[in-house]
Amino acid sequence: MKRCVFFISDSTGITAESLGQSLLTQFEHIEFDYHTVPFVDTIDKAQKVVEDIKQMGLSNGHRPVIISTIVDQQISQLFKAIDAFMVDIFSSYLSPLEQELKQHSTHHIGRVREIDSNPRYTQRIDAVHFALDNDDGGRTRDYDKADLILIGVSRCGKTPTCLYLAMQFGIRAANYPFTEDDMDNLKLSECLKPYKNKLFGLTIEPERLSAIRQERRSNSRYASLRQCQQETKEVELLLQKERIPFINTTHLSVEEISTRILSQVGIER
Amino acid sequence: MKRCVFFISDSTGITAESLGQSLLTQFEHIEFDYHTVPFVDTIDKAQKVVEDIKQMGLSNGHRPVIISTIVDQQISQLFKAIDAFMVDIFSSYLSPLEQELKQHSTHHIGRVREIDSNPRYTQRIDAVHFALDNDDGGRTRDYDKADLILIGVSRCGKTPTCLYLAMQFGIRAANYPFTEDDMDNLKLSECLKPYKNKLFGLTIEPERLSAIRQERRSNSRYASLRQCQQETKEVELLLQKERIPFINTTHLSVEEISTRILSQVGIER
Repeated sequence: MKRCVFFISDSTGITAESLGQSLLTQFEHIEFDYHTVPFVDTIDKAQKVVEDIKQMGLSNGHRPVIISTIVDQQISQLFKAIDAFMVDIFSSYLSPLEQELKQHSTHHIGRVREIDSNPRYTQRIDAVHFALDNDDGGRTRDYDKADLILIGVSRCGKTPTCLYLAMQFGIRAANYPFTEDDMDNLKLSECLKPYKNKLFGLTIEPERLSAIRQERRSNSRYASLRQCQQETKEVELLLQKERIPFINTTHLSVEEISTRILSQVGIER
Repeated sequence: MKRCVFFISDSTGITAESLGQSLLTQFEHIEFDYHTVPFVDTIDKAQKVVEDIKQMGLSNGHRPVIISTIVDQQISQLFKAIDAFMVDIFSSYLSPLEQELKQHSTHHIGRVREIDSNPRYTQRIDAVHFALDNDDGGRTRDYDKADLILIGVSRCGKTPTCLYLAMQFGIRAANYPFTEDDMDNLKLSECLKPYKNKLFGLTIEPERLSAIRQERRSNSRYASLRQCQQETKEVELLLQKERIPFINTTHLSVEEISTRILSQVGIER
């Protein structure tokens, strides 16, 4: 029987999920059944969720695990009364932090306030639109406004990485592809040369690239292992020759690719 | 003097940032100076970071705050020896969890393993490409494959929301705009009618919409308050008439919009 896990939050639940999954992936041999319950911000809503968790607990046979980022102590109390294993972030850390910082916390529900006039948020959304407008070499005239320009072969991960950098960190990232037609005499496009210090390369193992491309255009030259081998080899040679930093994306998630790039080029998050 | 905060991690640092920011935004009157140090996965790297933190602490006058998601206990020990306030997630919760789950944790560094064959990860990246291909009504023939179709006026938040739903949750979300030209006799496009159960509306206050559009095309009819008032009113009337669920995005982040939509339509994350 899978172990039931509840991520509960008075807000989006994203922090509870992220934290809970980091903790629970440390237990490889247990299967978990995850449930996220966001916006538990009133006693009424909490009581309903408490009942649901109790019901599940009864039918499951194991105590449920609760990962909570609920700020309101009255609401939290309702969950503590359940026979469950509970990780309660705010109860654990808020009063030690209050002592350390010599200030009472506001105990406000953790939503980002005044999103519409928050410059950090506006920057993130602007960066998403920048990534879309400057995707896949579609526009090259705004490279002076870019923080980064990712280069690499088709389907090595450029677009999702640019979008993640924008969404999560507000980084303005463009991307520019090397195409099949460039391969005979591969060199940096003229439009990239003035921005060499913004360039970052993504490489990928040819076997993985071929598998990804097969999904898109099966049995094409584009997806053939031979073509993928040639392209990745040519591009790596060029990146080395031009001394452009790069990473191999084969076994990395967009989160890892993005944070490694920032860490390598020294951009503050 | 701002209080120095270090988010340290043996992996991307995203969980440490997310958790730390939830905790520290509870202290409204203190200014923090955030530093993220990801990939602290060896003793050598840790020792260098420890020195940096100590130096900063000396010059700052307040003890630094450290939010750590480092799994390796030997590495963690190095940070515990600093005169700092430390939130150490794994030390706090891993051994109680081991007792509860009756299993030792792997103490592996928390990276997502085998990303290239992880179906959940593949689903997320596929969903990102789906959102891009089906952005802004650009393609309507794949709506049978969509989990959700967001509808609303230009610049009410459709595109960033679709991308977030894809990137974070692997949800395949398309979006379709109502344009200026539709307004005279607003109705649901024929291409949407067969998928009415997938439709979700985004609305926005006209003042906010006008401000966003001014950034894009200042002094245009498109950005005028009058035009924005007319469009938002027409669209809300249509959504009500057609009984399509909707939310007002004016004061919400993409995280909030996305999680509220999933919660309202009952899609599992």
